[in-house]
Amino acid sequence: MALNVYFAAGKDIWPEYRDAIRAASAKRGLAVNLSDSAPDPAAVDYIVYAPTESLSDFGPFTRCKAVLSLWAGVERIAPNPTLTQPLCRMVDDGLTEGMVEWVTGHVLRHHLGMDAHILGQDGVWRHGVKPPLARDRRVTILGLGELGTSCAKALAQLNFPVTGWSRTEKAIEGIACLSGEAGLAEALARADILVTLLPRTAATENLMNAERFACMPMGSFLINPGRGALIDDDALLAALDAGRIAQATLDVFRVEPLPPGHPFWAHPKVTVTPHVAADTRTATAAGVVAENIRRGEAGEPFLYLVDRKLGY
Amino acid sequence: MALNVYFAAGKDIWPEYRDAIRAASAKRGLAVNLSDSAPDPAAVDYIVYAPTESLSDFGPFTRCKAVLSLWAGVERIAPNPTLTQPLCRMVDDGLTEGMVEWVTGHVLRHHLGMDAHILGQDGVWRHGVKPPLARDRRVTILGLGELGTSCAKALAQLNFPVTGWSRTEKAIEGIACLSGEAGLAEALARADILVTLLPRTAATENLMNAERFACMPMGSFLINPGRGALIDDDALLAALDAGRIAQATLDVFRVEPLPPGHPFWAHPKVTVTPHVAADTRTATAAGVVAENIRRGEAGEPFLYLVDRKLGY
Repeated sequence: MALNVYFAAGKDIWPEYRDAIRAASAKRGLAVNLSDSAPDPAAVDYIVYAPTESLSDFGPFTRCKAVLSLWAGVERIAPNPTLTQPLCRMVDDGLTEGMVEWVTGHVLRHHLGMDAHILGQDGVWRHGVKPPLARDRRVTILGLGELGTSCAKALAQLNFPVTGWSRTEKAIEGIACLSGEAGLAEALARADILVTLLPRTAATENLMNAERFACMPMGSFLINPGRGALIDDDALLAALDAGRIAQATLDVFRVEPLPPGHPFWAHPKVTVTPHVAADTRTATAAGVVAENIRRGEAGEPFLYLVDRKLGY
Repeated sequence: MALNVYFAAGKDIWPEYRDAIRAASAKRGLAVNLSDSAPDPAAVDYIVYAPTESLSDFGPFTRCKAVLSLWAGVERIAPNPTLTQPLCRMVDDGLTEGMVEWVTGHVLRHHLGMDAHILGQDGVWRHGVKPPLARDRRVTILGLGELGTSCAKALAQLNFPVTGWSRTEKAIEGIACLSGEAGLAEALARADILVTLLPRTAATENLMNAERFACMPMGSFLINPGRGALIDDDALLAALDAGRIAQATLDVFRVEPLPPGHPFWAHPKVTVTPHVAADTRTATAAGVVAENIRRGEAGEPFLYLVDRKLGY
């Protein structure tokens, strides 16, 4: 008997995901009846979910064995009191690879001072101060989940001395791992380049406030591909104007699209990128969805099951 | 008793090297008397050399135990018949590391389409087409010497499928190696991004001409940190205008500094960088100099001793 899978994740991505989830399910020998229109809730076996959809009451989905998020960040759905079903977040190889590429690229961009050349094609040969080598440029990554750890390893491969910070203690070969509040001040003090890759939780909201920016070296760089709410926007603007932060590259914002009048757009030391650092990739993400359906049917533990108390 | 070290390598780099060689010598417990003015030749223990200096008769330096080149290429000094002292060339880790960082950074820059964001801070949220993952973006490197091989490995680590081409056959793990004329057409056909890292020889002069550009995929990228003479400038301009090459980043030119009126400066698809991709780094190069002085005094074999018959 075919499993009823309800795709509640946006009309715009439905066509590509329909084909990809069907293919990934078939590959695992699963018969799925996949639909994007609101079905009889009591007949749904699995929900594929993204917060772009209006679904907010999970109560009627009494048979549903799991809600499978297409997003890595589940801060919007995790606190939903009607959600009693297991919630799995997306951990997508393609997303991780995209994030590593984006983070490594922008770390190297700031490290090499590329913008001076990209923006300065005016016939003036500026053979000025050489940048230090990567081995002399310290990078700190806040957040050592799948994404932060992968970025840390890629940067360490390129000789950057990498410090990683996480809420709970971790050990990763080749990375100086710090944790807790005391560890945070030390991690920030080493951040010639800071990459913020923490999930959005009550504990990480406005983590980068005036006090925390003051821990960083003068003239350091901030790269935020994590969550907009990690940054106190006003504190960042003040840190930029004070020269504490030399340049910031921001991919995520409290409100997206970032409103045209927001001071980040006009600030000469800020680069806004439109939430492109890491997108879920259809083919690899559909594989994770199908794999979790297979696990659910086989009674095996789900991949990337969310701890509802922690929120990720 | 202090060793007399004569710095015959250019007035412009003297101040930085003076301090760096002194520091590197002190670290090895060597007492050196370092000078950049022509001393009593018969009292000189070591010569630090670069061809920018007018020194051409090494005969009077009868006590000199070695001539330590600051340059990797020793083609100008190696044939000097007055040079009877051992000659060591520079092999500087810092230069290779700097090249890998610059090449990796600019490959990622073109791969991610960074310029659209760096140049487009105008309040418009351009969440457009996602770039492919690195695993779907092919990079070809022409030249598999120390620099080309190191760049190839770093890019392969980041998942780029890397093809390397060299005149003579090579085998490098993780890199698809091609060679010879037939191999070149195939290597260029795979070049979504092309990095030219060949030495300048009669055989590589104008290697990238109209016919060779025509072998590349439409909309590909060119990055030249090798030698200006590898590129036929007019053929490149034509390939850019035809859309064959989407963007070119050039670090080296036939005439440097690139004259203000050269069309590369004004071309919207060209980024000129002022020969910064890889420089001998003072600190690491000074370390090699001091290490060779230490070895000379300890009676140990010199590093990077030149075979005068082979010329390198």
